[in-house]
Amino acid sequence: MHAADLDALHLGQALALARHAIGLSEPNPRVGCVLVAPDGRQVIGEGFTQQAGGPHAEVMALRDAQTRAQSTRGATAYVTLEPCAHHGRTPPCCDALVAAGVARVVAAVGDPNPLVNGQGMARLAAAGIRAEWGPAELAEQARELNIGFFSRMQRGRPWVRMKMASSLDGRTALADGRSQWITGAAARADGHAWRARAGVVLCGVGTVLADDPRLDVREVAIARQPLRAIVDTRLQTPPQARLFAAGGSPVRLYTASADSAAAQALRERGATLVPCPLVDGRIDLAAVLADLHALACNELHLECGPTLAGAWLQGGWVDELLLYQAPVLLGPGRPLAQLAALPGLDTAMRWRFHELTRVGDDLRLRLRR
Amino acid sequence: MHAADLDALHLGQALALARHAIGLSEPNPRVGCVLVAPDGRQVIGEGFTQQAGGPHAEVMALRDAQTRAQSTRGATAYVTLEPCAHHGRTPPCCDALVAAGVARVVAAVGDPNPLVNGQGMARLAAAGIRAEWGPAELAEQARELNIGFFSRMQRGRPWVRMKMASSLDGRTALADGRSQWITGAAARADGHAWRARAGVVLCGVGTVLADDPRLDVREVAIARQPLRAIVDTRLQTPPQARLFAAGGSPVRLYTASADSAAAQALRERGATLVPCPLVDGRIDLAAVLADLHALACNELHLECGPTLAGAWLQGGWVDELLLYQAPVLLGPGRPLAQLAALPGLDTAMRWRFHELTRVGDDLRLRLRR
Repeated sequence: MHAADLDALHLGQALALARHAIGLSEPNPRVGCVLVAPDGRQVIGEGFTQQAGGPHAEVMALRDAQTRAQSTRGATAYVTLEPCAHHGRTPPCCDALVAAGVARVVAAVGDPNPLVNGQGMARLAAAGIRAEWGPAELAEQARELNIGFFSRMQRGRPWVRMKMASSLDGRTALADGRSQWITGAAARADGHAWRARAGVVLCGVGTVLADDPRLDVREVAIARQPLRAIVDTRLQTPPQARLFAAGGSPVRLYTASADSAAAQALRERGATLVPCPLVDGRIDLAAVLADLHALACNELHLECGPTLAGAWLQGGWVDELLLYQAPVLLGPGRPLAQLAALPGLDTAMRWRFHELTRVGDDLRLRLRR
Repeated sequence: MHAADLDALHLGQALALARHAIGLSEPNPRVGCVLVAPDGRQVIGEGFTQQAGGPHAEVMALRDAQTRAQSTRGATAYVTLEPCAHHGRTPPCCDALVAAGVARVVAAVGDPNPLVNGQGMARLAAAGIRAEWGPAELAEQARELNIGFFSRMQRGRPWVRMKMASSLDGRTALADGRSQWITGAAARADGHAWRARAGVVLCGVGTVLADDPRLDVREVAIARQPLRAIVDTRLQTPPQARLFAAGGSPVRLYTASADSAAAQALRERGATLVPCPLVDGRIDLAAVLADLHALACNELHLECGPTLAGAWLQGGWVDELLLYQAPVLLGPGRPLAQLAALPGLDTAMRWRFHELTRVGDDLRLRLRR
C-alpha cells in the first residue's frame, strides 16, 4: 500500500472514531485520533472527544497508547480536526502531541474559526513536527460530521435542521389534526437519532398544546439529552406539560409575554424564560438563534407545526430539511408549512437533494439550500 | 464459468436485446433471443421482437445466424419469454426453432396467458428439444419488462401507470394553475421516455382546456407514437386543440355527451368517440379500461389533473405511481389529486416505494400497491 493510501486509511479510521462523539462531545466538535507506529502501519492508540470539559481525541489516543504500553515517540497522529493550540477547559492538544514525541501529524481539516485556522499546525511545525493536511474527500467528511460546529464558528449561528414527516401529497396530518402515525416505527426511531445529534430540540407552543411532547431522545442510546426549547409568544405552555417531567433536560421558553404569574408558574417547573422582541406579531427568530448561539448550540433540530415551520422557512433560516415521506396519499389535511402564496414559480425557494434513503417502508430525504 | 452462470449470462443478454423492443413491438411483448453455438459460449445470432405483424425475437435471431453464416444445428436458444406455439399474425416460433435444429431452449418466463402457459415448452419437448426454465431472478426481470402485457393477459386490463410531478409539499401548480416548470428538463424528458413505453397516453378534458397538450412522445426517439385518449364527459374538447394537429396518432374521446354537432366536429378532426356510461356523474373508468383492453393496450400512461387523478386513485385502478418531485416548497397551490377526506389514517391507501432515483435536480419515485 502506498503512503498516501495508508494516510487515507488511518484518517478514515479516525473519522469512524469521531462518529462515536455524536451525542457526547457537544458543544465540542466530534474529533477522532489514531496514533500509528513509526512503521506507518501498526495502530498504537485510538481516541475520540469526550464530553465537554473532558479530554480531547488526541489526549484519549495518547492515553490509549500508554495503556497498551506503546511508545509514541516517532509516531504519526491522524486527527480529523486540526489540534487545538489554545487553552480552553483543557490544555492545548498541540502541546500534548509535542510532549509525546510524535513525529508527524496528519489533520483532515483546519479549525473552522478563521482566526485560529492553521495556528495548531503552525505550533506543531514550530516544534519540529511534520504537520500535514490529509486528502480532500476526508476533509469534506470531517467538515460534514461537524457541520453544526463549523456553522457556529464560521456563521455565528447553529446549523438549522428542520424535521418533517408527511404523505406523498405533503400532508402532515388529517384535516382534524390526527397524525399518528403517518410514517412508520423505523422512521420515528431514525428521527430520534437525528434529535440525538442536536444541541437543542425546538418546537412551537402549538405542538405543545396539541401533542404534549417530551421532545427528548428515547429510541436511541444517548450520553446526554439535548436542551429543549419552545417558541411560546403568549406563554401558553401549561405548567403541567410533560416537558417538565422529572429528569428531563433544561427547557427554554422564548416569549414576548409580560404575564408574570404565568412566567412564575413555568419558572417553578424549571423553565428558563427568554424575553424576545416581536416582528410582525411573531417572536423574532433571529433573537432565538442568537440566544442558542450564546448557549453554544451547534445543531438546532426543529420539529414544528405548519405555522412556525413556515416562519423558519420564510425567514431563510433553515439549512437542511429532514423529510420523512410515507408511501401514502392523504388528500385533505394539514400542510408541511404555512407559506405565503408565491408570485411565480421562479421565486420558489430552491433546495437540492443532499441524500435519499429508505427507512423502513418510508423515505428519508435530506435537502439543503 | 459454470453452465448455470453461462445460462444466466446469455439470458441476461437476451433481456438486454428485449429492451430494444420498448416502443416498437406493442401490443406484442418485448422479447429478446440469443442463439449460442453447441460449445455453449459463442453467440451466433441475436434478435428482438419487431413491430406487430413483424417477426418475433426467435425468428430475428435465426435470421441473424443465417446472415452470419452460422449453423443453428445443435444450438441453444435463450429467450426471455416462452416461445409461442400458436398461429397469430406470424407462424409459431416453436416451429421455427424445431426447423432450425436447435437442441435446447432456455426460457426466462412462461406465457402469461394461463391457458397457454407451458404449451410452447411442451411443443418443443415433444419435438425432442431440451426445453428448460432459466433462473428465477431473470424470470422476474422478464416479467417486469412486460408488466403491461402480463397485466393484459392475466387481469384483462392494462397496467395503469399514473405520472405526476409535484413540489415537496405535493403541489402540482400554483393556486392560479401555473405549473411550468416545477420539475426540470431532465424529468420532463424522462417522462417522455415513460410515455413512449405506453400503448395509450390519457388525460382529462380539463388538461386539454388548460394546457392544450399534444400528449405525444417528443423528447426521445420512438418507432411508433402511443394512441391518445381524453376523458371528456361533456365533449368540451375544442376541435382546434393541438391534439388534432396533422401527423399525430389516433385520438379517442370517452364521453357521455349526446351533442351530435360537437361529436361531428370532433370526428371531422379524426377523433374516435367512445360513448361511456356515467357513474356518480362521471365517466365510468371501468368502461374506459375495457375499451383500452379491447384495443390491446398493455400499459396505460395517465397524466391527469387533480380531479381525474383522484377518480382513478379512488377507484383503485392505479397500479403504479410515477412521481417526479422537485426540491422546492410551494405553499398554496393545486394538489396532486382531489381525494375524499379519510375517516382515519388507517384507511389511507398504502403504497410501497418500488424504485427511487435522481433525475437531474429532481427525484423520481415509483410506487406500487
